Amino acid sequence: MIRSLFHALLASALLLFAVLSVADNKPTRNVILIIGDGMDEQQITIARNYLAGSSGQLLLDTMPLRAQVQVLAIEDQVDGKPVYVSDSANTATAMATGVVTSRGRIATAAGTNTPLMTLVELADEAGLRSGLVTTARVTDATPAAFAVHMSSRRCEDPDTMVDVSIYGFEIADCSAELKANGGSGSISEQLIESPLDLLLGGGRQRFEATAEGEEITVEALAVDNGFVVVTRPQELLQEKPGEKLLGLFAQGNLPVRLRGENGREAEAPVRSWLNYLNDYLGSARLPDPMNCEPNPDFDGTPTLAQMTEAALTHLSHDNDKGFFLMVESASIDKQAHERKPCGSIGEMAQLEEALALALRFASRNPNTLIIVTSDHSQVAQLVPDQSLFADYPVPVFTPGKIARIKTPEGSLMAVNYATNDFIMGEHTGAAVPLFSNTEGLGRISPFLQQPDIFRIIRGYLNL
Amino acid sequence: MIRSLFHALLASALLLFAVLSVADNKPTRNVILIIGDGMDEQQITIARNYLAGSSGQLLLDTMPLRAQVQVLAIEDQVDGKPVYVSDSANTATAMATGVVTSRGRIATAAGTNTPLMTLVELADEAGLRSGLVTTARVTDATPAAFAVHMSSRRCEDPDTMVDVSIYGFEIADCSAELKANGGSGSISEQLIESPLDLLLGGGRQRFEATAEGEEITVEALAVDNGFVVVTRPQELLQEKPGEKLLGLFAQGNLPVRLRGENGREAEAPVRSWLNYLNDYLGSARLPDPMNCEPNPDFDGTPTLAQMTEAALTHLSHDNDKGFFLMVESASIDKQAHERKPCGSIGEMAQLEEALALALRFASRNPNTLIIVTSDHSQVAQLVPDQSLFADYPVPVFTPGKIARIKTPEGSLMAVNYATNDFIMGEHTGAAVPLFSNTEGLGRISPFLQQPDIFRIIRGYLNL
Ligand SMILES: [Zn+2]
Ligand SMILES: [Zn+2]
Repeated sequence: MIRSLFHALLASALLLFAVLSVADNKPTRNVILIIGDGMDEQQITIARNYLAGSSGQLLLDTMPLRAQVQVLAIEDQVDGKPVYVSDSANTATAMATGVVTSRGRIATAAGTNTPLMTLVELADEAGLRSGLVTTARVTDATPAAFAVHMSSRRCEDPDTMVDVSIYGFEIADCSAELKANGGSGSISEQLIESPLDLLLGGGRQRFEATAEGEEITVEALAVDNGFVVVTRPQELLQEKPGEKLLGLFAQGNLPVRLRGENGREAEAPVRSWLNYLNDYLGSARLPDPMNCEPNPDFDGTPTLAQMTEAALTHLSHDNDKGFFLMVESASIDKQAHERKPCGSIGEMAQLEEALALALRFASRNPNTLIIVTSDHSQVAQLVPDQSLFADYPVPVFTPGKIARIKTPEGSLMAVNYATNDFIMGEHTGAAVPLFSNTEGLGRISPFLQQPDIFRIIRGYLNL
Repeated sequence: MIRSLFHALLASALLLFAVLSVADNKPTRNVILIIGDGMDEQQITIARNYLAGSSGQLLLDTMPLRAQVQVLAIEDQVDGKPVYVSDSANTATAMATGVVTSRGRIATAAGTNTPLMTLVELADEAGLRSGLVTTARVTDATPAAFAVHMSSRRCEDPDTMVDVSIYGFEIADCSAELKANGGSGSISEQLIESPLDLLLGGGRQRFEATAEGEEITVEALAVDNGFVVVTRPQELLQEKPGEKLLGLFAQGNLPVRLRGENGREAEAPVRSWLNYLNDYLGSARLPDPMNCEPNPDFDGTPTLAQMTEAALTHLSHDNDKGFFLMVESASIDKQAHERKPCGSIGEMAQLEEALALALRFASRNPNTLIIVTSDHSQVAQLVPDQSLFADYPVPVFTPGKIARIKTPEGSLMAVNYATNDFIMGEHTGAAVPLFSNTEGLGRISPFLQQPDIFRIIRGYLNL
């Protein structure tokens, strides 16, 4: 009798201890979301062939979980019809807020312009830290949509709020979102008022404009708001725990790591006059093969890995609440728009290095969910270097532009860009890949929609 | 003492029973490999948007396992250098034999022409049944590489062994593989001498030629070799258990299910004369939007699902050894080569229906591994219906050809084909998706090489 009473007491005590332990030792959880902008299956294969060889593996390929993500956009109306090709604004909004919106929008609803609560805001409410790292301007669509709200991605600073035009053609107007009109001001102004603990990338120019209704620049206002502003990579090494950190390492986008030989990009085949008269006559000469080479403009630019390392140190230091960090390799996309395959390959390498750091961090901090994904598919296609019809007695060649790259394993890899012949190629509509570390197993299904990424992160961090 | 002796005896008896049970009840295992030819992420998204809506799901999307497969080819030499874009011959060879070879080859080694043991041959040696089902000619590259050996995919019948030419241009010569020269003869001749239990698809013409060194056609020889030859879909319903079945339902490839309105395909934008003079002047008119419609030529053609159902019945009937079945939806690829997006969409629907049957079979026969994959990526790109630059005062349009499809959900989906402007578009090099049922869990990693598919199937079937 006494013995069973003792057992009952012991069991109760153990149960109580277990319950208390769970409450007290609730693990600190972190999420690192790495976005390869425009990183579709073509871009990944092109990068793998160059960086690891056609039968080699990228670090991405070793991830234990791989899924596919449906990319969704709608027309700019309430319940707008589907639009089949997205941009980085609506896709980042889907990941940051869980809501499908229209192209160009930054965390605002299609049709109504209602602000949509972002992961950074939810993390702040829950007491977690947050940071954004990008190789683009920090005011660009992908980072912006995680922290601020704007009807158009174009309204990046106080000087680009009214009648924004490119090549003399108006593309946006955010007048209604001026502070004078009761709005929150431009993207750069909102960023320095956001709860972000860390924001690293390019776009310093966007902070040099005078803040609306102030006598000082947005950058000066950032300092007033408690941000430490750094502009040189070596300043990243100085730990400033507890401070809010704004790093702006270029006036615009950060320079990229690789470029084509002597700056070459994809080029149009050179057609003979006879071929202009008749497609089956004459000849067409493909561009000469080229190597990729280091981009001299990259000197002095922090790598994505250096920024990621600084972010992980900054966000995890003396932090028992956890953090949300978004890291973007932005110029996989931007270099593809400009038809520069070497540029995209170099930025894929940057993403791989950032992922390596994230994995090392997670190995030391086990409750860290790493998700790597893309926002949308892109223009580049890996095509045969020699056409199917190369032996035929007629000239067969790609329309649009083509680059022929010498790979380290000694073969030629041809990449074409043929969605238009204008200044920038266009995005494409294919679903995009998603990778995760072991923390994603059982939490991420093989097929999901982009807004599910928001729900998975929110659920994991208990936001 | 007696009690523990009894226990020891009982334990031994149980162990013996368990061992015997495993040996006796070794489960009958089957593999259904479904290949969507050219079914890359662009094709899947295009089909999903049309068949299920942009936020809907295909049956593929509900599969519990999704992976990505590296597509590999080499130059036609021993240890040839990598080639970054593949064709259906070398890719089917990789899946059927586990060996990376050069383009155009059917289960033969690059450089040496050594025959490579195929899954059909290995299944036969192990006493399993096997079958191949396709919407192409049964002599086409994908089915052929699972059962026969040939230096060139072009040598499909006895009349196309020497100096094979297309448009007057020689593309292959298989003289050395003539029976007269000690070879095994053409693809159709080898197929009817193969251990296949079932072979269904098109390509009857390839069996109407006189067999080499014989007075009769290859089709007549097939009957001599024990094949029951059927040519009408309704004959598929007649069960002929135990017989070898050859079904040939069209002279060439089977007609496809869907086509563009009035047979339309992707078309070139119509440029004004001014635009020919200067890219930034004049105008370009995109093709009118179109619906997809049933292809009238499809009437009387067996569906891929009907052929798959017949194959499953035929191969599983009274079979305690298991089977290997390959099912190909071939014209996802062929219609993409011809720039016919509606055609590709209809053949994606055919693949989905065949998959539904495979899943139903597996639910009744649990030891059935279903793998769905593609052989290589393809030319089609889902592009914005309205260019990024549609509002600019210059004409911006796709080079190559474009189709604008009205989807059932009321939006416009634009698909471009711009790898060349010749008679057929070209394959692309991106890695391809792979899907599996629950039998694949723990057996298939998230990233694999195409030859791994051979090893997984061989291992599963204990070949
Ligand atoms: Zn972009
Ligand atoms: Zn093909």
